[in-house]
Amino acid sequence: MAVLDPSRDVVRLTVDLCDIASESLQEAEIADAVAAVLEAAPHLTVVRDGHTLVARTDLGREERVVIAGHLDTVPANGNFPTRLDGDTLWGLGTCDMKGGVAVALRLAAGLPDPNRDVTYVFYDAEEIAAKYNGLGRVARERPELLEGDFAILMEPSVASVEAGCQGTIRVDVVTRGERAHSARSWMGHNAIHDAAELLVRLRDYEPRRVVIDGLEYREGLNAVGISGGVSGNVVPDLATVTVNYRFAPDLSEDDALAHLTEVFEGFELTVTDSAPGAMPGLDHPAAAAFVAAVGAEPRPKFGWTDVAQFTQLGIPAVNFGPGDPIYAHKQDEHVPVAHLRTVEDALRRWLTA
Amino acid sequence: MAVLDPSRDVVRLTVDLCDIASESLQEAEIADAVAAVLEAAPHLTVVRDGHTLVARTDLGREERVVIAGHLDTVPANGNFPTRLDGDTLWGLGTCDMKGGVAVALRLAAGLPDPNRDVTYVFYDAEEIAAKYNGLGRVARERPELLEGDFAILMEPSVASVEAGCQGTIRVDVVTRGERAHSARSWMGHNAIHDAAELLVRLRDYEPRRVVIDGLEYREGLNAVGISGGVSGNVVPDLATVTVNYRFAPDLSEDDALAHLTEVFEGFELTVTDSAPGAMPGLDHPAAAAFVAAVGAEPRPKFGWTDVAQFTQLGIPAVNFGPGDPIYAHKQDEHVPVAHLRTVEDALRRWLTA
Repeated sequence: MAVLDPSRDVVRLTVDLCDIASESLQEAEIADAVAAVLEAAPHLTVVRDGHTLVARTDLGREERVVIAGHLDTVPANGNFPTRLDGDTLWGLGTCDMKGGVAVALRLAAGLPDPNRDVTYVFYDAEEIAAKYNGLGRVARERPELLEGDFAILMEPSVASVEAGCQGTIRVDVVTRGERAHSARSWMGHNAIHDAAELLVRLRDYEPRRVVIDGLEYREGLNAVGISGGVSGNVVPDLATVTVNYRFAPDLSEDDALAHLTEVFEGFELTVTDSAPGAMPGLDHPAAAAFVAAVGAEPRPKFGWTDVAQFTQLGIPAVNFGPGDPIYAHKQDEHVPVAHLRTVEDALRRWLTA
Repeated sequence: MAVLDPSRDVVRLTVDLCDIASESLQEAEIADAVAAVLEAAPHLTVVRDGHTLVARTDLGREERVVIAGHLDTVPANGNFPTRLDGDTLWGLGTCDMKGGVAVALRLAAGLPDPNRDVTYVFYDAEEIAAKYNGLGRVARERPELLEGDFAILMEPSVASVEAGCQGTIRVDVVTRGERAHSARSWMGHNAIHDAAELLVRLRDYEPRRVVIDGLEYREGLNAVGISGGVSGNVVPDLATVTVNYRFAPDLSEDDALAHLTEVFEGFELTVTDSAPGAMPGLDHPAAAAFVAAVGAEPRPKFGWTDVAQFTQLGIPAVNFGPGDPIYAHKQDEHVPVAHLRTVEDALRRWLTA
């Protein structure tokens, strides 16, 4: 079994975590190694649920913070194992998000007496369909384990605070026509031509920008797929445009769907995927205090992250982790060593001040 | 070996031809059977080229007519063997085009002394890619075998004369953008949205109608396929619209491409397939005489057929055969018995008057 030593430098620990292969649904080994670290810490109460680990201090502090990160990665892409080159750590998981996991694990093991109680969560299967998500499973089945006043999700956020997240909804919008031989096209009705109006609406759409808690969220409405056609000599009777709407967190999923129904009035529309956004929640005292302590100017989070799961539980949450999310899932995934140190120092300071 | 008896009724001979399976590239057996009939006729000189048979009378007549039909079929689709039900013959090949082949074979065997010399052509591999086409092979390699003043292609044409045929050209029109995560769509450029203008031009296009030799040809410009998309959360950088232009035979392939280049100005365009049309040629004396003799009102042919091959050789040609082409390649392929008799009687009359 792989052995992790949390007393080693955060860079070294990140390397060790990255070099335990842990593609989604294959997290047994890394979960065992992390569990061993947590269980060795007498100040932590550890609960294991599948390959998700929840480790809590119980010091009776007035405030409890949840610090969470996922253990899985997307599949390797010629970027395993890790490679340290100067001030940059390259490889699968360095950015998304074992750098953050390394910081959390060092704090969990090394801070027996934090100034607020902490619940550390290391969970499985974040990179695949939502139904497998370990944090979601615990939220549904054992929500008491996630109770807290504030949550920090250590997703890559360029070592600064990214608050809230957009919601996302995917719909298939279809047009229907009537087949005919293309040599006698007037006998049919071309469904692809009918998609013209649909694409015009998308092209001309002006995405909303909305300011929430001082952060500007930019929405986006995009065709992410289009298909149609029977064969090279047939007027097609069906065209399908897959649309992804990323909406600011002041809208609910229902609001988002209502908006799409309006935008695509006259077209047939089916929802294929939907997840709520998360309000930044920076008006909550615990969140405001964290932002002040970290000293960073918070920015809006554009991608969807599990902060939305905390929002659903009524817990204000922010993203705060090492690495730039634009390198997540990329062949050239990497994390600057400076990010690892900045994030660890900020959290250590905040938990011990 | 299957044996054909051309002295039997045309319906019986059609059944016998249909019941020799002859999917494209599997025409050996039917070609052998047809060759045996032709070689048994002392008034015919028979040349075999692969599975294509050319049988000529050489009576020194002033005029020579080419009568042609293909021996192959598309794959069976639960419609083999043939079934006679009342006045309709059902099954693979009945319409496209062994009814026509049966008529031609009966004329070839039974008319030793026609009033014009006749070249009968029974050829292979019409239903697949043009490079396999037996008529095309003979036209390229032994064009002298196809010499004539006029040609009749016995493709289904509802037992009336369909003259000329449309040309067809297929192009891929693409739009290019720049990928980005759909949560930060303003970082990229959506290629599918750019296809809006393309589809608008297709939707608003007014197809030309042109009268040639008294026949009105209707053109058609249709998207027959569309594709684009990387994944559900990526702004796509490429969209491809496959367009099929069916053009009236007064345009050459070059004219057709020039027109498409104009219609899709500003877009990137690649030709994937192209075949010329065929002028109806009804102003040629031999063609006019045929139409007059048959007594049918000629109509324009909309699908592409091998009449274009004769046009390329400078031989006026028409389609004249039993069966409605809309049932070709269909599960419910069939031919009315009346069509078989009408077409045979008309040709026999014309060749013996």
